[in-house]
Amino acid sequence: MVKVLGLDPSLSSTGWGIIEVENNRLRYVADGFIPTDAKLPIEQRLDFLYRSICNVIETYKPDEAAIEIVFLNTNPHSTLKLSMARGVVILAPGTYSIPLFEYEPNKVKKATVGVGKAAKDQVETMVKVLLPGCRPKNNDSSDALAIAITHAHFRNAPRR
Amino acid sequence: MVKVLGLDPSLSSTGWGIIEVENNRLRYVADGFIPTDAKLPIEQRLDFLYRSICNVIETYKPDEAAIEIVFLNTNPHSTLKLSMARGVVILAPGTYSIPLFEYEPNKVKKATVGVGKAAKDQVETMVKVLLPGCRPKNNDSSDALAIAITHAHFRNAPRR
Repeated sequence: MVKVLGLDPSLSSTGWGIIEVENNRLRYVADGFIPTDAKLPIEQRLDFLYRSICNVIETYKPDEAAIEIVFLNTNPHSTLKLSMARGVVILAPGTYSIPLFEYEPNKVKKATVGVGKAAKDQVETMVKVLLPGCRPKNNDSSDALAIAITHAHFRNAPRR
Repeated sequence: MVKVLGLDPSLSSTGWGIIEVENNRLRYVADGFIPTDAKLPIEQRLDFLYRSICNVIETYKPDEAAIEIVFLNTNPHSTLKLSMARGVVILAPGTYSIPLFEYEPNKVKKATVGVGKAAKDQVETMVKVLLPGCRPKNNDSSDALAIAITHAHFRNAPRR
């Protein structure tokens, strides 16, 4: 049995999800999101984000972590905020020596919805189908669970 | 007396510099750079970078930290790497509740060289003049010292 942590980073609200993988069976464990207070200085928002992911790791002790490969948007300010959050989110598995695997967004959609292009709601619907009993907290945590599911599908031929 | 940590982030080699500020007097304390191994997975490179900055903070116990406002370049891959490193570098003062101040690059050049545009070598030359006895380890740590000097100049009217 392998426990997988899926991560969907953003400075305003990072999603996370934990699933267990045994052969081809998936089991939902937990999910959540980490909203940071936009009124705080950036170093304190990043500190809160990092400590929250570390708490998730210490609570659920995942064996592997997965994240989407990011495609940068054209707004430099958003790009900077997203990438700084991504750095801090990726740091957490690094701190605990948990290997991190990266997947392209269309792979995540293929592994959940079955096609390379899909709306957020379709992803959430399929996450609920693939993880019986799971009611994702919001879109961020549902995306994080989708990334964990993707890693469960591809982990025997992962790309780092 | 206030101890200032200047930071010049990059994934391949982050520069840092520590100075003491007393009234208008500056004193060089230490400087260095943190090269990360490009052969390691990204989460391990970020982990090494973060722990190294934390070590600097625990060793020198700065009161305040300063960093340049970043202007993103046009290569999305470089932008992502730089911004992720920047997130992790900014996290370290957040971890120790050290306030972080950000300065535009032309302010850094004005505070050291005296004009808003200057070559890296000019900055290094002026860092040596402004911090007697200081021989910066390389361009990265000299830039970090320049950022610390900038904060010393502007810290009574800082921008966060």
